[in-house]
Amino acid sequence: MSFVLALDVMGGDKGPEVSLNALKDFLKNNKQVYCLLFGNEKYIIPFLKENPGLKNLVEVIHTDEEITNTTKPLVALRNLKKSSMRLAIQSVAEDKAQAVISSGNTGAYMALSKMIIQTVDQIDRPAIATAIPTLRGQSIMLDLGANPECNIKNFVDFSIMGHIFAQNLFNIASPTIGLLNIGTEEFKGNPLIQEAARQISQLPFLNYSGYIEGDDIMKGTTDIIISDGFTGNIALKTIEGTAFFIGKLFSQEIKNSLLAKLGVLIAQPALKRLKNRVDPRNHNGAVFLGLKKPVIKSHGGTDVKGFCNALKISLKMGQGSFYSDLEKSLDETFSMQSTQNN
Amino acid sequence: MSFVLALDVMGGDKGPEVSLNALKDFLKNNKQVYCLLFGNEKYIIPFLKENPGLKNLVEVIHTDEEITNTTKPLVALRNLKKSSMRLAIQSVAEDKAQAVISSGNTGAYMALSKMIIQTVDQIDRPAIATAIPTLRGQSIMLDLGANPECNIKNFVDFSIMGHIFAQNLFNIASPTIGLLNIGTEEFKGNPLIQEAARQISQLPFLNYSGYIEGDDIMKGTTDIIISDGFTGNIALKTIEGTAFFIGKLFSQEIKNSLLAKLGVLIAQPALKRLKNRVDPRNHNGAVFLGLKKPVIKSHGGTDVKGFCNALKISLKMGQGSFYSDLEKSLDETFSMQSTQNN
Repeated sequence: MSFVLALDVMGGDKGPEVSLNALKDFLKNNKQVYCLLFGNEKYIIPFLKENPGLKNLVEVIHTDEEITNTTKPLVALRNLKKSSMRLAIQSVAEDKAQAVISSGNTGAYMALSKMIIQTVDQIDRPAIATAIPTLRGQSIMLDLGANPECNIKNFVDFSIMGHIFAQNLFNIASPTIGLLNIGTEEFKGNPLIQEAARQISQLPFLNYSGYIEGDDIMKGTTDIIISDGFTGNIALKTIEGTAFFIGKLFSQEIKNSLLAKLGVLIAQPALKRLKNRVDPRNHNGAVFLGLKKPVIKSHGGTDVKGFCNALKISLKMGQGSFYSDLEKSLDETFSMQSTQNN
Repeated sequence: MSFVLALDVMGGDKGPEVSLNALKDFLKNNKQVYCLLFGNEKYIIPFLKENPGLKNLVEVIHTDEEITNTTKPLVALRNLKKSSMRLAIQSVAEDKAQAVISSGNTGAYMALSKMIIQTVDQIDRPAIATAIPTLRGQSIMLDLGANPECNIKNFVDFSIMGHIFAQNLFNIASPTIGLLNIGTEEFKGNPLIQEAARQISQLPFLNYSGYIEGDDIMKGTTDIIISDGFTGNIALKTIEGTAFFIGKLFSQEIKNSLLAKLGVLIAQPALKRLKNRVDPRNHNGAVFLGLKKPVIKSHGGTDVKGFCNALKISLKMGQGSFYSDLEKSLDETFSMQSTQNN
């Protein structure tokens, strides 16, 4: 079975080399993948000349229009009709590829995907979801910034999508769901989140565990963490910032002491294992859930290893049963809610 | 000069011993402090018998009514008229003490304080503020949970209060202010936060730096971090959770390797310094800003060292010029806004 992937080569803070080198590694282990490369050929052609083995595994679609990190979503929608990101998304909408991946401008990527690939019929707004490491392994978190403000239906949609995503990505039959709040008691939060909690808890196919707090995220208290995009984005970046903070203090303290340097040298293998467990590259690759086709977003600042992980997620999303499973669950929810309302 | 402090002995997850032992340590170094102890004498009297040196430094006000962590704020307000927390707050409202401290139920403490001590005239809603460690030293963060939903004026009020609080607590003449958002570009977030940003930036006595993101918190990008209480609470608890996560992974990896144990032993002094720099006890003590008198909240789960830090903050808040400075700034803001509207 062959799988066609659309790659926006121009995204990413470190230039096209990151995604191209990651692709090279990825194709070695995934012989069934064929890749459409969207971007400026002045970067792509020299890379393919250096790597002649890739020649039959990729097709180059040249464009010199590019979306940068400062391009406003509206400009990306209205003015840049031939950007590499847009063409890559279009190829999926036109069934020329089964999934699209980019590490470019998130706002533009989401806006273009919504317009071109469109949202699943019963979902109002797509959400950004990613896996994060926790004490129990890993959890799924969404929304991470697509929807700064959410209504009740958005929270319910996120829970259903998170449920199917966790089933597909982690193979957990009945993943637990936690709603991020400022306390675990029923009366905590605001009326919106309280009504969302009530509605989520009424869907029998979801394994709803109740409210969770900020410190539950990394404990892995639940397999899925649901929040609005404002809170989710700030929580995720706070995790990154705190990990950076502790790492930095660690280096500072070690640097100032010869004895500490020696100690760290001796403990090196254990510290490496620790570093590997918190390495964000092992979880790189967010998915825009709720669109009709797989749209995968890599972190803009990642490297070859990180981008490779996002490529793996693209393949999983394209080959798994996420979209048919989601449709089934949405139909079930709809018919249940119709019955309740009659 | 003598300073009278009202202490709710009954708060805290670990029983009255924590606050009483912390007080004992604190009084040794702060001879000017006299303390009113509110709580059940069956805990307090035996402690005073064991510590006869305290006899002339404290007064016991017995009550057997108590607010627990599960008491709903409304019950605390309506039914428990003689709780230790309420009596302690009342003593400050009646000028029998200059500051009140408790490690009890935050919701009940805030509700009782608002009713009894009342909010500063030009402030709509009090906020919970605390210091947190950052790469640049420490920063002030508010609101941490008192106001799950905020309007524009709340954000402006929080900025003014944070400004005066940072001046008083850290002695920074012109502390920088960051508004927590999901991006640093002007168009990020929602209309509410954008208008709040505009209004904060127009107050010339504030040093407004613009939007900051979740990963800026621990970097110490700004001296003050402003957010609504929902986001702030989740960000703070996410910091705690992430620090716990990394600490736990560290122990797990070390435990499994004899060599790593040796390395850690050698690096011990450096690791201790690191631990001290992230120790939440060194920053324990949140302040309910916006009330007419100093109300200090200690973390319920802290120990003697942590509670001692909260006691220091109580003294600072009671002796500093926070309240007169705040009044001046609010008057300045009010007259400026009146001029603009005419």
